[in-house]
Amino acid sequence: MKFDIFDFEEKDNFDKYIKSASENISQLLKKTGKGNNFLGWLDLPFNYNKESLVDICKTAIKFQRFDIVIVIGIGGSYLGSKAVIEALKPQFGILKPEIIFAGHTLSEDYYSELIDYLKDKSFGLVIISKSGTTTEPAIAFRILLNELKKSVPKEKLAERVVTITDSSKGALKTISVNENYKSYIIPDDVGGRFSVLTPVGLLPIAIAGFDISALLNGAVDARQMCAKYNENNLAVYYAAFRNLMYKSGKKIELLINFNLRLNFIAEWWKQLFGESEGKELKGIFPASASFTTDLHSLGQYIQQGERHLFETAIVVENNSKLRIEIPFDENNLDELNYISLKNIEFINQKAREGTLKAHLDGGVPNCKISIEKLDEYNIGYLLYFFEFACAISGYMLEINPFDQPGVENYKKNMFELLGKK
Amino acid sequence: MKFDIFDFEEKDNFDKYIKSASENISQLLKKTGKGNNFLGWLDLPFNYNKESLVDICKTAIKFQRFDIVIVIGIGGSYLGSKAVIEALKPQFGILKPEIIFAGHTLSEDYYSELIDYLKDKSFGLVIISKSGTTTEPAIAFRILLNELKKSVPKEKLAERVVTITDSSKGALKTISVNENYKSYIIPDDVGGRFSVLTPVGLLPIAIAGFDISALLNGAVDARQMCAKYNENNLAVYYAAFRNLMYKSGKKIELLINFNLRLNFIAEWWKQLFGESEGKELKGIFPASASFTTDLHSLGQYIQQGERHLFETAIVVENNSKLRIEIPFDENNLDELNYISLKNIEFINQKAREGTLKAHLDGGVPNCKISIEKLDEYNIGYLLYFFEFACAISGYMLEINPFDQPGVENYKKNMFELLGKK
Repeated sequence: MKFDIFDFEEKDNFDKYIKSASENISQLLKKTGKGNNFLGWLDLPFNYNKESLVDICKTAIKFQRFDIVIVIGIGGSYLGSKAVIEALKPQFGILKPEIIFAGHTLSEDYYSELIDYLKDKSFGLVIISKSGTTTEPAIAFRILLNELKKSVPKEKLAERVVTITDSSKGALKTISVNENYKSYIIPDDVGGRFSVLTPVGLLPIAIAGFDISALLNGAVDARQMCAKYNENNLAVYYAAFRNLMYKSGKKIELLINFNLRLNFIAEWWKQLFGESEGKELKGIFPASASFTTDLHSLGQYIQQGERHLFETAIVVENNSKLRIEIPFDENNLDELNYISLKNIEFINQKAREGTLKAHLDGGVPNCKISIEKLDEYNIGYLLYFFEFACAISGYMLEINPFDQPGVENYKKNMFELLGKK
Repeated sequence: MKFDIFDFEEKDNFDKYIKSASENISQLLKKTGKGNNFLGWLDLPFNYNKESLVDICKTAIKFQRFDIVIVIGIGGSYLGSKAVIEALKPQFGILKPEIIFAGHTLSEDYYSELIDYLKDKSFGLVIISKSGTTTEPAIAFRILLNELKKSVPKEKLAERVVTITDSSKGALKTISVNENYKSYIIPDDVGGRFSVLTPVGLLPIAIAGFDISALLNGAVDARQMCAKYNENNLAVYYAAFRNLMYKSGKKIELLINFNLRLNFIAEWWKQLFGESEGKELKGIFPASASFTTDLHSLGQYIQQGERHLFETAIVVENNSKLRIEIPFDENNLDELNYISLKNIEFINQKAREGTLKAHLDGGVPNCKISIEKLDEYNIGYLLYFFEFACAISGYMLEINPFDQPGVENYKKNMFELLGKK
């Protein structure tokens, strides 16, 4: 991984953040900072022995024989696995088994269409919920289990359902014991948005056919890099840069990519940073865009609109396995012959360089996070890097990055409207 | 359509905007305001006679016999049709014909995978470009036409390609004439982001099997409503509300929905408003979210983060054709029996009410745009409403809503890096 900041004028203030960061790293690693009872994610990359990984893979292989696996979860219970799967799966056609997410919406037509789609197809359920009573996934589980029972005899249900939940308490734990469902644990000290390297993320990713061992190896190496107190700690650089931006009035961070595959990593990142830092009336608003696609929609705003933005670009250095050259055309009416016989990715690179420079010139500072290629190892590295940077960044902002005191407010109103006692 | 603003304190200032709006409407309809040579979109709903619609539908039917139709375009040349198709098509499985968008990215693996996917499938190309020399779609057209030529003899190519371009000039027009491709016109006085009701949007939507006549009827009715100088002009209300928000420091607008189908309408809306208003260092930053999904990611930030947000909710009043009830469960471990035998959409409504109230209480003002149901008519109405509101809103902000002076900056750098003369 590489981290670059493009020309900016705040070098002195930046160095102050970097110097203060060793205190933040220490708070984190010694568990003396805010929210220190939710730091289980720090050690997740090391927590798996061979047996526990093999066990997840065995379950995954069993579920791979179904046409469809429905992963039921909301927030951190689906964003991580979806982000990884979308980054790695083919961009066209349908994966076998098809992974469908549910329990993340209350849209009725979503469920009516899904039930229709399931007809004459075999399917299994992975239900992810710490408590088992969160409204969205609990509703989806009731409905889809009901559907499953229509085609699967009671004694065979346990072959179709896996739960990922609390180790000892809660509705879903009780259901798992009563019904003899295979069950994996969400550790007590890991919050939803930091759970991608628990079975919450690993099981769906393994079912989709990707190498969770390589994903964890990437996270292990990221951890080695992030725990350093020296100049090679890229998480500190990123955390310092964004805090400096925020202090200077850049209150929106646009996470940009140059490959549509990364769009859902941005959704995962939005929860990670938005939910960690958006409190006490503070925090950078997390937004995202895919270029060059969105240069033709948001480009005008970024170039010349209100100056409250900065950009963080995720760059994949070797973006393509198969080379596609732009063909030569003797007529050249489209005037592309000057780049004919070049690879498309070469043009994409130049567009990227041109864009970051144009935005910088227009008053939108930017930084660049580069990974070598899009594979499990590099994605694991990237995700852990973001988690660690988020923790440090939150400490720099002087908030508790590990709680979410505001997420219940809408639920209170909703329960009141629904007449819940 | 209905428009509601939740309790807010700026009633006096709001009324000032409403009063000044009749001048803005007049500028627009009499074509005396800024950018008045790009007002062709205003009359698009009335511009189609029966023959021109029948002609589009005939072409659509021809293309429906292919396995895949690839729509090549970027920015306004794909966002409108994609938004409408995503809102109407089934949420699971693959449409027949499958509509694939291209020419909107420079990601090489997208094209290498697409070429692989096209093997043994029949496909047609719809290429949309005013000039024919915009880098992304021009590259995609060269590559995909090259692929088409591998399986289709030269004399049959014209059956597989439709162009949508300038009426008289430009590379793509010349190519269309030379190769005898069926060609539709992008009017001179319609900018990309206002082009969804030209063949740019209508042809792909018709190929996907949706009723473009109903879409236009919705726009006709929206036009009747929007051109009014009285209190029933909802476009004026929306424009006034957002300008008031902007002036009071709410510099981010979150367009929210409660149905995942609407996510791409938000992408279309982002271009419409972002590119129209983001200039002269001004403009609201357009962002979006789908609830309740994203309440579990962005909810914390919205509730308690930096107070620079307001929300616009798109609400579909009759959201579902098929009713899905939450089953009763005698064990009730998940504690959902208090809502059993209720429809999911009922819960979704209560979540919506609870959310908008919680956000308002937390310092995020919001407004609500309600449409009756998700069909072609209501979507046509909604799109035209947004276009008209965007024009009025831009005039209130005192910018030219119809130009985009900053979008070329990155291209200049890119061309320089690519060595273009």
